[in-house]
Amino acid sequence: MIKQLGRQTLMLPSAPSVLSYAAVVGSKEGEGPLKDGFDYISGDSYFGEDSWEKAESHMLRQCFDLACGKAKLSPPELDCVFGGDLLNQCVSSSRAMKETGLVYFGLYGACSTMAESLSLAAAAIDGGFAGCAGALTGSHFCSAERQYRFPLEYGGQRTPSSQWTVTGAGAVLLGRGGAGPRITHLTPGRIVDAGIDDPANMGAAMAPAAFDTLRAHFDDTGRSPGDYDAIFTGDLGSLGHDLLVSLFEAEGIELGIMYLDCGVLIYDLATQKVNAGGSGCGCSASVLCGHILPAMERGVWKRVLFAATGALMSPTSAMQGESIPGICHALVIERED
Amino acid sequence: MIKQLGRQTLMLPSAPSVLSYAAVVGSKEGEGPLKDGFDYISGDSYFGEDSWEKAESHMLRQCFDLACGKAKLSPPELDCVFGGDLLNQCVSSSRAMKETGLVYFGLYGACSTMAESLSLAAAAIDGGFAGCAGALTGSHFCSAERQYRFPLEYGGQRTPSSQWTVTGAGAVLLGRGGAGPRITHLTPGRIVDAGIDDPANMGAAMAPAAFDTLRAHFDDTGRSPGDYDAIFTGDLGSLGHDLLVSLFEAEGIELGIMYLDCGVLIYDLATQKVNAGGSGCGCSASVLCGHILPAMERGVWKRVLFAATGALMSPTSAMQGESIPGICHALVIERED
Repeated sequence: MIKQLGRQTLMLPSAPSVLSYAAVVGSKEGEGPLKDGFDYISGDSYFGEDSWEKAESHMLRQCFDLACGKAKLSPPELDCVFGGDLLNQCVSSSRAMKETGLVYFGLYGACSTMAESLSLAAAAIDGGFAGCAGALTGSHFCSAERQYRFPLEYGGQRTPSSQWTVTGAGAVLLGRGGAGPRITHLTPGRIVDAGIDDPANMGAAMAPAAFDTLRAHFDDTGRSPGDYDAIFTGDLGSLGHDLLVSLFEAEGIELGIMYLDCGVLIYDLATQKVNAGGSGCGCSASVLCGHILPAMERGVWKRVLFAATGALMSPTSAMQGESIPGICHALVIERED
Repeated sequence: MIKQLGRQTLMLPSAPSVLSYAAVVGSKEGEGPLKDGFDYISGDSYFGEDSWEKAESHMLRQCFDLACGKAKLSPPELDCVFGGDLLNQCVSSSRAMKETGLVYFGLYGACSTMAESLSLAAAAIDGGFAGCAGALTGSHFCSAERQYRFPLEYGGQRTPSSQWTVTGAGAVLLGRGGAGPRITHLTPGRIVDAGIDDPANMGAAMAPAAFDTLRAHFDDTGRSPGDYDAIFTGDLGSLGHDLLVSLFEAEGIELGIMYLDCGVLIYDLATQKVNAGGSGCGCSASVLCGHILPAMERGVWKRVLFAATGALMSPTSAMQGESIPGICHALVIERED
């Protein structure tokens, strides 16, 4: 029997549970509104390493170890890890995992990777392929900036629609049973290309994908935005957030005040000079693990729809003038009373 | 119940079956020993497009469409696709899939992507998450060469241990039932770093990972190399092939003459000037779909162990002097009599 609901949504009969999670961020994120939720804030952008690429790996491994420690599990007790990042050939996540000796599935979902990895980890448990599985992702402002844009030393001007790549990582361990929040539904995404070709306007490139996935989720489940205590998109930023609200309004659907975007939440947009907000796969990862899951545990929200968004472009495709397709993977996280 | 066998191997009780497959390659591969098995050989390295990156996308989409056509399925009849490639941010596979409207999981497994995508597609079916799932990957010599090494115009000398990135793609559609070969076991891999730091010697970097995964597979299943009609590694090339044979010999295990490497098979190493053989994720993908699966259908082999290998490096990590970890994902493909 296929665990399918409608066209695009999957139900997970076993509802894998969150065993533990951790978030590690850099200093700018540690000065933002969510600072109290992060497990570790590094004052050193190098995380004690000698390159920003190694810093990113260090941060990912540190985050993974923190999550393992909270679950009182050593890495060999996990069955597999799903992970990815934004660097060319995803080297930071593979380097972060190489000493663990764990079965590793490398992903590339751009900034949707936290939802993609968490979805596949949940499916691995629900399908009987793992007893305990990890999901890990992160990004680093300095390694991303020099790979995607300009050398940091250049000090390039940023357009108002641009976003700030979050230095941050999130790790979630999933298992069976346990008292933590549970993953009940997955709505993995399709690639949506709205023709946006400005790499400094990722929010506009990704909002149509978020719309496509969330609409499919509501159609498939028969639920409406009001059935969720909160809905989070990954890193649409302030512009993308408003675009998504407009896209739903045009269909007569009100997302409501509990629709929030991780890229808007992680920084103080008025004072932290991040223009349209945070981005990078560490954005939704660190907000999930440093804000959403802790708040669910405190009883703030019971049922959350988490929809991380990715822009599927490379500097080469952008220089070749190609459009930027987006993708959004969504999943339902639910806490029992 | 966890479908686990030993430490690292998964059994698939439903044994998802191969519904169809297709292989598309470039002209050099079309002049090699396996030429008769490929579905399409392009005489044009641009595949009719105006850049090699777009050519790679075109080839992937063409390959996917051929596989769909053979299964008499239109893309919307699939539930999801797992895909990836070698380009920065995996743009060629995401662009190839964007018009299909299919749920898409982007992967980065370097040259192990054919086995990674096929494993996850098989697990998606066995776990009840999909009725029909696709696995797709490919690489293009020209786009890879200028991204990883030098502009083609430069005409750089190649070391004897270097390998030639295959211009090729492979697509497999999996489902339930059907008369095609079946995926019965998965042994996904762990990251293994033997300290090799020469990007022109990928075979040496990946052979230890192949050893780790294959040894785990034999341990977990209680099988030995002789239990398989053929064992294929992805793209170790001639040097990596011999290294793997030596690593097993040191443990008293004879891989035997039916241990073959896709990177050795795809070119005539004596005449095609590819040094140690083929590489790139299109190598194992096109050999699987243009040689292994067709031969299984003709009754040549009944039980095959397919183990694609990846080198987890980027030009940046190589320039920073870092070692090149490898990964190998293996799976068992079995034909019923």
